[in-house]
Amino acid sequence: MMPGRFIVVDGVEGAGKTTQLAFMGDYLKRAGQQVVPTREPGGTALGEEIRDLLLSHRHDGMALTTETLLMFAARAEHLERIVRPALAAGRWVLCDRFTDATYAYQGGGRGLPLERIAILENWVQDDLHPDLTLLLDLPVAVGLERAGRRGAADRFEREEGAFFERVRAIYLERAKQRPNRYRVVDASRPVEAVRAEVEAILADWLERSDG
Amino acid sequence: MMPGRFIVVDGVEGAGKTTQLAFMGDYLKRAGQQVVPTREPGGTALGEEIRDLLLSHRHDGMALTTETLLMFAARAEHLERIVRPALAAGRWVLCDRFTDATYAYQGGGRGLPLERIAILENWVQDDLHPDLTLLLDLPVAVGLERAGRRGAADRFEREEGAFFERVRAIYLERAKQRPNRYRVVDASRPVEAVRAEVEAILADWLERSDG
Repeated sequence: MMPGRFIVVDGVEGAGKTTQLAFMGDYLKRAGQQVVPTREPGGTALGEEIRDLLLSHRHDGMALTTETLLMFAARAEHLERIVRPALAAGRWVLCDRFTDATYAYQGGGRGLPLERIAILENWVQDDLHPDLTLLLDLPVAVGLERAGRRGAADRFEREEGAFFERVRAIYLERAKQRPNRYRVVDASRPVEAVRAEVEAILADWLERSDG
Repeated sequence: MMPGRFIVVDGVEGAGKTTQLAFMGDYLKRAGQQVVPTREPGGTALGEEIRDLLLSHRHDGMALTTETLLMFAARAEHLERIVRPALAAGRWVLCDRFTDATYAYQGGGRGLPLERIAILENWVQDDLHPDLTLLLDLPVAVGLERAGRRGAADRFEREEGAFFERVRAIYLERAKQRPNRYRVVDASRPVEAVRAEVEAILADWLERSDG
């Protein structure tokens, strides 16, 4: 059986990931694929409990090392239980955030050295990496303004603008370093314009990677 | 200020760690030390929530990689919030289980390669290691019979005898490899006999390490 594909959508707060992921799922289903939509941190029952520990204000003083290990613990469970089995069964995994977010938030945002993150990435993922990562990029102020409309801010959303500037910079740097695997989409435009570009990227990518 | 000392008690189920730790705390207080009793996994509010994830049967299918990362996440928080500050303030940390238990249970018991554990140990602890580790050792059957008296078994306690034989073998191997830092105590004897030996070991160690 053809193994499936692993597609990730990532980016700063308010970039419209959830909306575009829903469009992408529909698009890939119409293209005849079995799609497994999922998210990080989370994606499993245990992962969602870890997500709750990570986002909850009751753990405001959490050490950065702890936070990073919890992210990778949720990721390990997600890969083992959801992603690897789905790919092996020929399904297409469509994931809201992945390891780029750890580099961006724990590395860029909070200052953990990127090479320390790489050690855990290698420990957990070995040779598993997304086949395609769509980075929904937009100016931090625009994203925060959009995210602010959603109500109560979690442990990450209540950070300052400078934090998100560092997050965005790491995302863009990683995309630039790996042009084969990343596509950067200007997400400051209206939803339908972003959707059209995302679908054009998918169409092109499906063709090139022989769908 | 003189930094404190980091003393660990470890060993298989039913070895009497809790009882001996209480005696040791009293002994060290009588010797004039400020003692911080703590435990792993746990020791912090967040660590206790992680402990609950690790021990609960609702996560019976947890991946071994996830389990190990959660252990080190709890450890990272414990070191950052409790152990390092206490040692820096000259207090003596008396800890129920530490990284040896990860080598013994996740490595020996469940089969995670020990060198993979060493990567996380180094990532989390850097150069922090216990000054003294007391390994309470006893035949697996005796320990299990004692532990069985305590009621409902958690995710580790319900394992088979062969699992605990592998756990015990790793503990003993680690103690043998590091004779300066470990003391092995025959914990199959009556509580008061074990207590006498533990206190003799502490007295000797305090004298040698110039108290």
